[in-house]
Amino acid sequence: MSKLVIVGTVAFDAIETPFGKTEKILGGAATYIGLAASQFKVKGAIVSIVGGDFPKEDLKMLESKGMDLSGLEIVEEGKTFFWSGRYHNDMNTRDTLITDLNVLADFDPQVPQEYTDAEVVMLGNLHPLVQLSVLEQMVSPNLIVLDTMNFWMDSALDDLQKVIGKVDVVTINDEEARQLSGEYSLVKAAQKIMQMGPDYVVIKKGEHGALLFGEDDVFFAPAMPLREVFDPTGAGDTFAGGFTGYLAKTGNFSFENMKNAVINGSALASFCVEKFGPERLLNLSGKEMFQRIQQFKSLTQFDIKLT
Amino acid sequence: MSKLVIVGTVAFDAIETPFGKTEKILGGAATYIGLAASQFKVKGAIVSIVGGDFPKEDLKMLESKGMDLSGLEIVEEGKTFFWSGRYHNDMNTRDTLITDLNVLADFDPQVPQEYTDAEVVMLGNLHPLVQLSVLEQMVSPNLIVLDTMNFWMDSALDDLQKVIGKVDVVTINDEEARQLSGEYSLVKAAQKIMQMGPDYVVIKKGEHGALLFGEDDVFFAPAMPLREVFDPTGAGDTFAGGFTGYLAKTGNFSFENMKNAVINGSALASFCVEKFGPERLLNLSGKEMFQRIQQFKSLTQFDIKLT
Repeated sequence: MSKLVIVGTVAFDAIETPFGKTEKILGGAATYIGLAASQFKVKGAIVSIVGGDFPKEDLKMLESKGMDLSGLEIVEEGKTFFWSGRYHNDMNTRDTLITDLNVLADFDPQVPQEYTDAEVVMLGNLHPLVQLSVLEQMVSPNLIVLDTMNFWMDSALDDLQKVIGKVDVVTINDEEARQLSGEYSLVKAAQKIMQMGPDYVVIKKGEHGALLFGEDDVFFAPAMPLREVFDPTGAGDTFAGGFTGYLAKTGNFSFENMKNAVINGSALASFCVEKFGPERLLNLSGKEMFQRIQQFKSLTQFDIKLT
Repeated sequence: MSKLVIVGTVAFDAIETPFGKTEKILGGAATYIGLAASQFKVKGAIVSIVGGDFPKEDLKMLESKGMDLSGLEIVEEGKTFFWSGRYHNDMNTRDTLITDLNVLADFDPQVPQEYTDAEVVMLGNLHPLVQLSVLEQMVSPNLIVLDTMNFWMDSALDDLQKVIGKVDVVTINDEEARQLSGEYSLVKAAQKIMQMGPDYVVIKKGEHGALLFGEDDVFFAPAMPLREVFDPTGAGDTFAGGFTGYLAKTGNFSFENMKNAVINGSALASFCVEKFGPERLLNLSGKEMFQRIQQFKSLTQFDIKLT
């Protein structure tokens, strides 16, 4: 069992989908990553920042999932990062309605002393300089996974390329992989991103699954076909948390084991979208997870006799 | 080894992609279906119609692939069906430039006597009444597969529903499944289409793979990630031909074996898009096909220990 450092937002979200809307609810990349990783009972620490308005019971809930919060700064006089968005009918596109950075504007991440020797680091979507600052505090991690998005390509490309050059795995969605690489073909896009430094690239295609690329290898995990996608918020972060959580638990960072990590990430993401926000992850049982992995097996495994 | 009846167009296509353009080249649904099915050395017959302008060497080529052409009517004074289209940069959307029905306007399909007892029937995309006419000539096929498109939903929905009610498997693309069912969720769409009669539905998602649905089962095959998709023309028909060809060869119409058929169809489609028109299918070797199936295995198979 490896230690896992998670950096990312802990936030409030207000979400509108064709199925309904929420008030301010618990959200943020590090929240989803932590909840997903906790499925593997890893020893994890969340490095983030919230305001005095952040509910104490949500902090307790994260701690009850095994997350060390000594690196979660609470600015009593500040307000928590808030994002609000509305999904279109296809659930694949959304409009951002509100982005209030609040305390996040001055976030200076502090990795708890006890976690500076962690083997696995998950850099959730944040300003690349924040991600770099976390890396500089780590002693010698064996696996660094980075998630990012187009916003940083537009506003901080140089810094983003600097941090990409220091990580082992990049997780990124398909359109963003195309933007970052300038290549339409996802195979070529992944190769170009690997030339920037990482040994592996995971391209997330939402309802169309995820591709894992290594130097000479490729693996594909579908999204579980669901009767209803209720709310896609956090699915990509949940995937990343399941991916790194599984790798931290097993301590095996080979391509073969990354395949399993991709499937575990996809399984957790398939739960995440079944309810608003992180609700479905809060009470997810090991038995449900076991059954979902079996469903992935029957969804993808075939037995052609090659003679 | 079952006998296979294929009905569909045998045609000329002129294709423009971002990579170049062709003159009038060999095309048509039945052509792609037949070439794909021939990979399994099935005893197949193509039921179609061409004009006197259709090259004799293309007829010989199809016969050399094991296709019986006694049901391929040649109207010496007529012209062959012609389609011309231009693909957009994303290769997923295209504009139709020309559709000249020519001899297809008066097509009255005649199944060769020797094939009326065939076990497997592949109804390629054509007017539903033509598809029905073929079915009425068959004695008692064990497996009927139907491919269709939105054009018939818009122009001949009643006839289309009649033929859908008589088949075992429908292959259809994702947007068309949504249109036919009125459901956005592909799981719900497949269930609604199965309520119209078929026991199985294959939803083709192009570069995003294909889903096979049975009453309580679902299977997913990805598209092979390629450095370049050169020309998507015929990929759906090639998939259908590989699917039915494999089933005709094995004579096993269980869901488990349909999984293998979907993988074989996907493998053949992944070759088809590598060159203009059907060119890549013409000289495809068994060894190349074997290697591609192995690639699909390594692309999708994982080994999570469930404890």
